[in-house]
Amino acid sequence: MSGEPSETLCSAPPVNLEAQWVVGFVDGEGCFFIGINPHPDMSSGYQVLPEFTVVQHQRDVQLLYALKKFFGCGVVRTNHAERMAFRVRRLEHLSTIIVPFFEKHPLKSKKRVDFLSFRKVLRCMEQGEHLKAEGIDKIRAIASRMNTGRERESPSPPETE
Amino acid sequence: MSGEPSETLCSAPPVNLEAQWVVGFVDGEGCFFIGINPHPDMSSGYQVLPEFTVVQHQRDVQLLYALKKFFGCGVVRTNHAERMAFRVRRLEHLSTIIVPFFEKHPLKSKKRVDFLSFRKVLRCMEQGEHLKAEGIDKIRAIASRMNTGRERESPSPPETE
Repeated sequence: MSGEPSETLCSAPPVNLEAQWVVGFVDGEGCFFIGINPHPDMSSGYQVLPEFTVVQHQRDVQLLYALKKFFGCGVVRTNHAERMAFRVRRLEHLSTIIVPFFEKHPLKSKKRVDFLSFRKVLRCMEQGEHLKAEGIDKIRAIASRMNTGRERESPSPPETE
Repeated sequence: MSGEPSETLCSAPPVNLEAQWVVGFVDGEGCFFIGINPHPDMSSGYQVLPEFTVVQHQRDVQLLYALKKFFGCGVVRTNHAERMAFRVRRLEHLSTIIVPFFEKHPLKSKKRVDFLSFRKVLRCMEQGEHLKAEGIDKIRAIASRMNTGRERESPSPPETE
């Protein structure tokens, strides 16, 4: 459409999303990831970092802000190069917002299997299992079966929300 | 979920899709592409091949069949390696099914701009412009502005539906 106005990253009007659009977009572009990093201050020796991420080229950053608005949590940050990420890391937000949403509106792709593993790890963490070495082994076993069979979005470095 | 049955590519039950899910998934994974290939039998010297494609890892091939069922047109074919594609190439199906769907349910990503260019090329073709050299130049100019700023799904070799 030749009359289509050119949109800049910041001046675009907010986009309102519907639940099924979010499910379809996350089926395509979302990632449920469990980071397990050595951490001397943790009683188990490791820090477990669950993360829900949607990465996009910066030209569609308005969709990442729309997801942030839709879920009412998370941050939008540079991922790498020209790619931006919507990211939820806070355990409370993952457990009370992200997980219930995808329980109510199930993913249709095999990413659903990753989501179920992700939820299992969150439940382990709610029980404090990540604070013990055996819990870390259990979480590591669950995480090792996630995000197989497709390209994995590389998670960005640790940062608080 | 440890009790989740393992699903094979063929035995999975058909997935029913909602329009907004399709829009979200295509915003993430879809591609509107105009191929322009030299062709000695065409009066313009070129063949114009518009194509709507969604590519997925074969583990999610059931979603491509669900798209084929949802639109009631197109084919599911191997793309390359372990990737499969849902593809619509027939001009009649693009003009009467795919374009009206995305007019009624607009894409939310910048892929919408590619869709509008794609529609413009289809309209040129409906007027027979692709049969003249000037029409090819016009279509080439429109196509050259499409699919910029992101990875492009490489279209598979020509084949009838």
